[in-house]
Amino acid sequence: MSSEPGMLVAGYVRQERLLDNLAALARFGALPAGGVNRQALSAEDLAAREWIIDLAVALGCEVTTDQCANLFIRRAGLRDLPPVVTGSHIDTQPCGGNLDGCYGVMAGIECLFALNEAGIVTQRPLEVVIWTNEEGSRFSPGAMGSCAFVNPERLTDYLDNQDQDGIKVSAALAECHRRFAALGRRARHPMAAFIELHIEQGPVLEQAGLPLAVVQGIQGVRWYQIRCLGRSAHAGTTPMDRREDAMTLARRVADRIEQAVADVPADQLRLTFGCWQVAPNAINTVAGEVGFTVDFRYPDAAVLDRFDAAIASLAAGNVIITPMLSQPPVAFDAQLLARQRACCAALAIPAGQLVSGAFHDAMHLAAHCPTGMFFVPSRDGVSHNPAEYTDPHSLWLGARALACCLTELANPLTGVTL
Amino acid sequence: MSSEPGMLVAGYVRQERLLDNLAALARFGALPAGGVNRQALSAEDLAAREWIIDLAVALGCEVTTDQCANLFIRRAGLRDLPPVVTGSHIDTQPCGGNLDGCYGVMAGIECLFALNEAGIVTQRPLEVVIWTNEEGSRFSPGAMGSCAFVNPERLTDYLDNQDQDGIKVSAALAECHRRFAALGRRARHPMAAFIELHIEQGPVLEQAGLPLAVVQGIQGVRWYQIRCLGRSAHAGTTPMDRREDAMTLARRVADRIEQAVADVPADQLRLTFGCWQVAPNAINTVAGEVGFTVDFRYPDAAVLDRFDAAIASLAAGNVIITPMLSQPPVAFDAQLLARQRACCAALAIPAGQLVSGAFHDAMHLAAHCPTGMFFVPSRDGVSHNPAEYTDPHSLWLGARALACCLTELANPLTGVTL
Repeated sequence: MSSEPGMLVAGYVRQERLLDNLAALARFGALPAGGVNRQALSAEDLAAREWIIDLAVALGCEVTTDQCANLFIRRAGLRDLPPVVTGSHIDTQPCGGNLDGCYGVMAGIECLFALNEAGIVTQRPLEVVIWTNEEGSRFSPGAMGSCAFVNPERLTDYLDNQDQDGIKVSAALAECHRRFAALGRRARHPMAAFIELHIEQGPVLEQAGLPLAVVQGIQGVRWYQIRCLGRSAHAGTTPMDRREDAMTLARRVADRIEQAVADVPADQLRLTFGCWQVAPNAINTVAGEVGFTVDFRYPDAAVLDRFDAAIASLAAGNVIITPMLSQPPVAFDAQLLARQRACCAALAIPAGQLVSGAFHDAMHLAAHCPTGMFFVPSRDGVSHNPAEYTDPHSLWLGARALACCLTELANPLTGVTL
Repeated sequence: MSSEPGMLVAGYVRQERLLDNLAALARFGALPAGGVNRQALSAEDLAAREWIIDLAVALGCEVTTDQCANLFIRRAGLRDLPPVVTGSHIDTQPCGGNLDGCYGVMAGIECLFALNEAGIVTQRPLEVVIWTNEEGSRFSPGAMGSCAFVNPERLTDYLDNQDQDGIKVSAALAECHRRFAALGRRARHPMAAFIELHIEQGPVLEQAGLPLAVVQGIQGVRWYQIRCLGRSAHAGTTPMDRREDAMTLARRVADRIEQAVADVPADQLRLTFGCWQVAPNAINTVAGEVGFTVDFRYPDAAVLDRFDAAIASLAAGNVIITPMLSQPPVAFDAQLLARQRACCAALAIPAGQLVSGAFHDAMHLAAHCPTGMFFVPSRDGVSHNPAEYTDPHSLWLGARALACCLTELANPLTGVTL
């Protein structure tokens, strides 16, 4: 296999057009002080979809949707084979940046521009997909669209979930479908491959001085709620040896959880006690109950299982442990990883490798087809924030690597005009 | 000095009458499921005051008030000397019991019954005082009335303080004064002694199997607010060595505070981290800021000072320390303590001794006149709760000891009818 067609298409990826289209998308839901608020299936989201659909049609693509309002922008291939797919999401956090998700979508569109300008026809169709409600900030759960695409039976569980105004997922989907009634509807369809290009949302690439990473997989995650029960008592009158201080207990439990993973190599380890509730939460009252959350991530299933066992061993009459989420680690497709690395090498892009600590739509797609991701750096590791930023050169390199990979995977014919 | 007149009066203290009067007082603000909500200067408080004033007048006493609506029930003495005073408060927590404060007031009234029935005339007047707003649950600060009595200039600082409905202290006081306009007004007046009888609100006496304690003093208190500053970050994408986790920092600071007092004898030590705020308080976000409170109590000023120094040494760019309260320990009057012990001995009441970990009006009175306290046990150490309970026999013994002490201090003449 030669990488020449891929390199040819990569040569048509234009930084300025990519940045312009990112800026155009960022106008939908732009916040006065910078950043974007574009909630899933909101008026801003629907307006942005309309703009992207127009762009896709102008590029000669066919646009379809499915029951969860995922949007598929299809560049036809010569044969009716499962498509090569890229994409991400365009919904944002309430005070988000304009790259999280959007970069993957607009870089996919940029690849379509480049393919057209390069005059490349592929055997396989190529699709850019916009997954609905990845952030989960309007409707729970996050990555709803990609999950419902891969597991259509799961959507019924989500339809009654409401946003904070009491609007149900079903109602928001119905409005979107009315707005875009002209689009054809699809069900789950086979895919030859899915590659998601995304910002890292962490500091590792910046620290390493690398513009790109081939993502090896997604960390497994465990979420727990730990309730520590004590007895509220007067802070002045209750001797220390007569107390059942729930905060003291919670601090000791947190210490023991830290100790349980003290021997785990720290570079991939993520352990966070992020959310705390203290009752009655008064300066002069010993805490009667303290709840806190545990977020543990690691790429090795054996370590995750060992963590589960360590947590379970802490359960007691006054330590109530509730598992909230158990997500196995995802290892991306080895052949796809090799092709991604080869494209980076051919384009002379210095690419590192890392494991994603964040969830992405690719997590669900990995159960559907060979899946991979590229990351570009996030300045200061900042995301979910208007200050989210990646230097334009890295954005351009990421889109070039994506264009190269997609083209190669789609089995191109050179020298044929569509 | 003979303790015979004191023992004579103690013999007229009647358990049934005391319990009946406590039950009658508990009807003002009674909660449907038990317990009492009688906020300072509320309609329930004013109705209770009216009932007590009627009782006092029937006992032949003169009732006066002052600018902070403290109520003084005066049984005349033969000479116009500074009175011997007892009393406490009748305001309660929002879901309080019927003994906290009320016991001290109604036991004082019971002493007046007993004095009358014993036919005892004293040289000094005897006063039962009701201090306004001890709990501080409606208006800040607590122990307002006793503080304003001893330090009249402080009241102006409190007049604009509001309850949660926006009603000011000044307005609530004015309404009370209108209701009881017939009462004479007094300023701060000298007192020969103040003895407050109160429930322990802790478990020590119950554990020791003692019905009564002569309280040696009140613990010194330090309150601090500790703000730990970090940087909020994604729980999945941020490596551990790149984090500034404010909760990890706060847990370490709390550990160091504990270690700073690890060598302090534990029986009198009280250390509580009762109130916590975590931001942004999300399961998948490293905490950017954590605030927590420190409540430290100890009877020895040198230990309190050493604690202050230890806390100060923890201050750093990311650890902001704000002192909130610094209350020196109070040692009660040695002569009064001796008399209290002598009365207990004469009445064959087994009395322990302890230092109060809770604030009481006696804390302020100690700066005004020789002051002491008696404690009776609290079942399970429970207070500020409808389950607050002391066995009737202990309540009776406490009132007997109080009657004995007050009588002795007031320099009685026997065999004379008032």
